[in-house]
Amino acid sequence: MSRLLKLAQKFNCFYLSGLSSGDCRPFVVEGFQVGLVRPDVMSQLLKFPEVFRITSGCVELNPAFRDYEERSSQVDRVLRELRAGSVFIALKGWRDECYEVKTDFTSKSLLKMDRSATCLFGIRNYGVDINGYVRHPKLGLCLWLQKRAATKQTWPGKWDNMVGGGLSVGHGIFETAYKEAMEEASIPAELMKNLVSAGCVSFFFESERGLFPNTEFVFDLELPLDFIPENADGEVETFELLPAEQCLEKLFSSDFKTTSVPVALDFLIRHGMITSENEKEFIKIVELLHVPLQSIYNHTQTVSNSIKENGTTRVNNV
Amino acid sequence: MSRLLKLAQKFNCFYLSGLSSGDCRPFVVEGFQVGLVRPDVMSQLLKFPEVFRITSGCVELNPAFRDYEERSSQVDRVLRELRAGSVFIALKGWRDECYEVKTDFTSKSLLKMDRSATCLFGIRNYGVDINGYVRHPKLGLCLWLQKRAATKQTWPGKWDNMVGGGLSVGHGIFETAYKEAMEEASIPAELMKNLVSAGCVSFFFESERGLFPNTEFVFDLELPLDFIPENADGEVETFELLPAEQCLEKLFSSDFKTTSVPVALDFLIRHGMITSENEKEFIKIVELLHVPLQSIYNHTQTVSNSIKENGTTRVNNV
Repeated sequence: MSRLLKLAQKFNCFYLSGLSSGDCRPFVVEGFQVGLVRPDVMSQLLKFPEVFRITSGCVELNPAFRDYEERSSQVDRVLRELRAGSVFIALKGWRDECYEVKTDFTSKSLLKMDRSATCLFGIRNYGVDINGYVRHPKLGLCLWLQKRAATKQTWPGKWDNMVGGGLSVGHGIFETAYKEAMEEASIPAELMKNLVSAGCVSFFFESERGLFPNTEFVFDLELPLDFIPENADGEVETFELLPAEQCLEKLFSSDFKTTSVPVALDFLIRHGMITSENEKEFIKIVELLHVPLQSIYNHTQTVSNSIKENGTTRVNNV
Repeated sequence: MSRLLKLAQKFNCFYLSGLSSGDCRPFVVEGFQVGLVRPDVMSQLLKFPEVFRITSGCVELNPAFRDYEERSSQVDRVLRELRAGSVFIALKGWRDECYEVKTDFTSKSLLKMDRSATCLFGIRNYGVDINGYVRHPKLGLCLWLQKRAATKQTWPGKWDNMVGGGLSVGHGIFETAYKEAMEEASIPAELMKNLVSAGCVSFFFESERGLFPNTEFVFDLELPLDFIPENADGEVETFELLPAEQCLEKLFSSDFKTTSVPVALDFLIRHGMITSENEKEFIKIVELLHVPLQSIYNHTQTVSNSIKENGTTRVNNV
């Protein structure tokens, strides 16, 4: 099988196999599915029946919680207890930075949750990535990559796209792009004028830490030959400018952050480096860079009905 | 709802609703699903039990046919009879040009079929499209569009991408791009050197003619300001250069060929004209430009088993 297709299957391991195994249950808030919960997480949530109602069909946040604030603080309390008990690897990377929890990007946020915990509930994640590139007179198309600092809580020391960051509570897409460009690579505003929105990638990854239904908003930024990125926030060890072919080679190595591969692949495809001529599985790979996350979290009707039929909002822990 | 999302749902009408309705049955050749057959087509195929074996589970091409040639000629005979009987609109556009019939792009072709008939069987279609564009000093990014000739068998008189064509038997992707660029728009080889492969779009459309699980290989071609395309094969009425915003507006009109919209949308997204800032449903739209056709035609195991269990290759018409 094509190496690239294998790679696309790797960052979609949950989409391609975990999803259909049926081991995970929908995580439902206010009648809307916002995530998926693995059995290992479920067994821990059983200890908090006043917060999570677990049935054979789904894991539901107690519908008696009144609003965004109450839902957020109740979940936060459970997560801090689980973190203190060192139950999950994911929570060792507690961030004190929250992500919104919602069915899709445009729907109302139902609660916020520390970003380290979202993978335990399979909450959809949104991030921003900038492909910084150079049209080199001798080397052709070259890409700037960053090596993540050894002190990063996730993927320490791995290679990554030039600039990237998660969309946390209260921050917009373009705002995050500008903020990260400044903090991670000291890109001056003057150069950021050339930033071009180029689409997004969607994939569904799983690791020992949890589930990652991720969508990354993708930006391209052509940089002048003499610009050299410089890190300002201590989160990057170094930057390197690589010709596209070498960059592609690097994606195959275990030194590259798996969940950052889709953005780089998408760039190499859009810029004619990976084509239907040099890659047999071109179509499958392009489709696997945009899996339909929009249609995965659709466990709404059933739940709304069950709540209606029960006519109660008490927690019936099964 | 966003106008653009509505548009993306329109060219995916079968993916989003027809597919789950369960009205269509898998079309199976040699144990592999290569298409889907609607009830109206099924009722006609019942008249040819020596060629099509119709069970509750699927429509199967008689497995007694020995090879590619026999399968192709047997199906061709049926199609010519149906065409003579004026049963299907689709066959009025008989082309004397064949498409390969296979599960996916890289698998072995099992037979060939006149391209006008492939929509009756929901055969996967592959095409090539070139976005011819200009960076105009005053108007900004502009796209060349073609108006299809009034004599075209499909979508006559509709607006379309500058250059496009189906991948017919014996022709490669880049070869088709070059051939169509010459025939449709007289683009000289010198300018074609700037052709950049930019990905592909996948969608699943349905019309009264039939089913269209289409994948288009997408190319971008930046053209000089003074180049004016000229048609050479009589298939184009006229060309027009439009600023990106006007081009986007045209996509919403009923004058634009529905199945060509995805390529233009993808271009406008990749070039920063449609962004997460100006389009609320950005993620859904990008996902709908790349629906997972690779996982739709997977009715293989069941069929192989049923053939094995029956231990026969006779046509058992139910």
